[in-house]
Amino acid sequence: MSKLKRNERIGAIVKILCDSPNKVFTLNYFTNMFNSAKSTISEDLVIVKKIMEELSLGKVVTLAGAAGGAKYVPMMGKEEKTTLIEKICEDIRKKERIMPGKYLYMADILYNPSYTKGIGDIFAEKYSDDGNQVDYVLTVETKGIPIAMMTARGLNVPLVIARHENKVTEGPKISINFISGSTGKLQTMYIAKNAIKKESKVLIVDDFMKAGGTAKGMIQLVEELECKVAGVCVLMDTISPSQKLVQNYLSLIKFEAIDEANEIIVHPNYEKL
Amino acid sequence: MSKLKRNERIGAIVKILCDSPNKVFTLNYFTNMFNSAKSTISEDLVIVKKIMEELSLGKVVTLAGAAGGAKYVPMMGKEEKTTLIEKICEDIRKKERIMPGKYLYMADILYNPSYTKGIGDIFAEKYSDDGNQVDYVLTVETKGIPIAMMTARGLNVPLVIARHENKVTEGPKISINFISGSTGKLQTMYIAKNAIKKESKVLIVDDFMKAGGTAKGMIQLVEELECKVAGVCVLMDTISPSQKLVQNYLSLIKFEAIDEANEIIVHPNYEKL
Repeated sequence: MSKLKRNERIGAIVKILCDSPNKVFTLNYFTNMFNSAKSTISEDLVIVKKIMEELSLGKVVTLAGAAGGAKYVPMMGKEEKTTLIEKICEDIRKKERIMPGKYLYMADILYNPSYTKGIGDIFAEKYSDDGNQVDYVLTVETKGIPIAMMTARGLNVPLVIARHENKVTEGPKISINFISGSTGKLQTMYIAKNAIKKESKVLIVDDFMKAGGTAKGMIQLVEELECKVAGVCVLMDTISPSQKLVQNYLSLIKFEAIDEANEIIVHPNYEKL
Repeated sequence: MSKLKRNERIGAIVKILCDSPNKVFTLNYFTNMFNSAKSTISEDLVIVKKIMEELSLGKVVTLAGAAGGAKYVPMMGKEEKTTLIEKICEDIRKKERIMPGKYLYMADILYNPSYTKGIGDIFAEKYSDDGNQVDYVLTVETKGIPIAMMTARGLNVPLVIARHENKVTEGPKISINFISGSTGKLQTMYIAKNAIKKESKVLIVDDFMKAGGTAKGMIQLVEELECKVAGVCVLMDTISPSQKLVQNYLSLIKFEAIDEANEIIVHPNYEKL
């Protein structure tokens, strides 16, 4: 390969860093790839950092010292976050989502790749703080998996999925019982015994919170595994009941009600964006 | 914002294109963002295209005409693909994966963000052909969801997840019965009636294929919805039985056996990479 120009190296560095959020790439990695001096790569990284910040495209953190290098951390501007969450709310308000029993059909939103990455990036950004590193993202099957996966990707940590059934193919389990707020039924949650190392910090991600029973169940599971809960993130919660079973959590969308005219009253949780 | 230099614009263009694979961004989008002439942006795109190809970082397709613009298509070099799949095989070979009943514990691999994106990109690349556009990615809960989500993201199409239970919260369903090869049990698969539009092309993605019962079930579901199967992709299949219930499918890893010394015999499906 012929020697690349600065603008070519910068394009490549951006691609490589952003493909693997929160992964550190050493200066050596890039000097080998481009056959360039460290000082040259350092200058490239200064430019990459600047573009990301100026255009609210994310944050590039450079690390000094022997293991020096750079990593990309998802970070969206307040305006970009608000635009995304408003767009999702607009989509939620479609009346054809209302199912018998006044349930809202949400699967297409939760599985839409143009939403899931942004949602995952918002959650990952909040928990990308180096002082309080998250070790795992935990969700329970099924609807929260895509946004949990995107959060895990943003944080560069493994995703763990609790199951509703004890699958024989997955070896020994730990289980807890919980009451799902959306159906009012007693349910069981299983997790593979070795899926999470003791004393890890676990970020809980789910699609929806009503009373908080499912989230509380996941918190219990984390404690059962002798780990700590780093936080609880949901895409949407209901304003009622106002007293949830979980105290501290982040929700991006507030669901108020389906009113008498069948309007779905939902809005971004502006203060948390 | 002050006017950006070429290398800054290029960094930003790479980030924006790669954040939304298979989404077309018009020249106007970039001229507005950077306050630059179309000819300038066109030159930038030529450079972006060149870097991606030279470094096997993906493909940038430029589209001429009034709606002209550019999009990023996931594309890995043969070497990168082989390295990734060999690394996954290495990870699969760990003996502690062997569970009672000779099942392999695979969840940590299937939910590992540093694997899932690459797997999704490999599948997306194979089905990014403009002449044979995929409209949806379909999987069945649970273990295939992360790679299916990443494939949907690579293709920029919605993900649809078939369920094992008929959830009341999701409205009217279509269901089919099938026999799962890994457990030998008769199971049911449900899909929301309106999740997929008639006459769409659907790409089926799953984690594992033994006899092909689950994949065949998904094919039946697609046909039930009056849609066409664009293809079937699995991360791993078994060499036995050699006669599967599904004829054409792409598998990235071949599982042979767990031998008498408890070695897990598994290798990349080199000819398909």
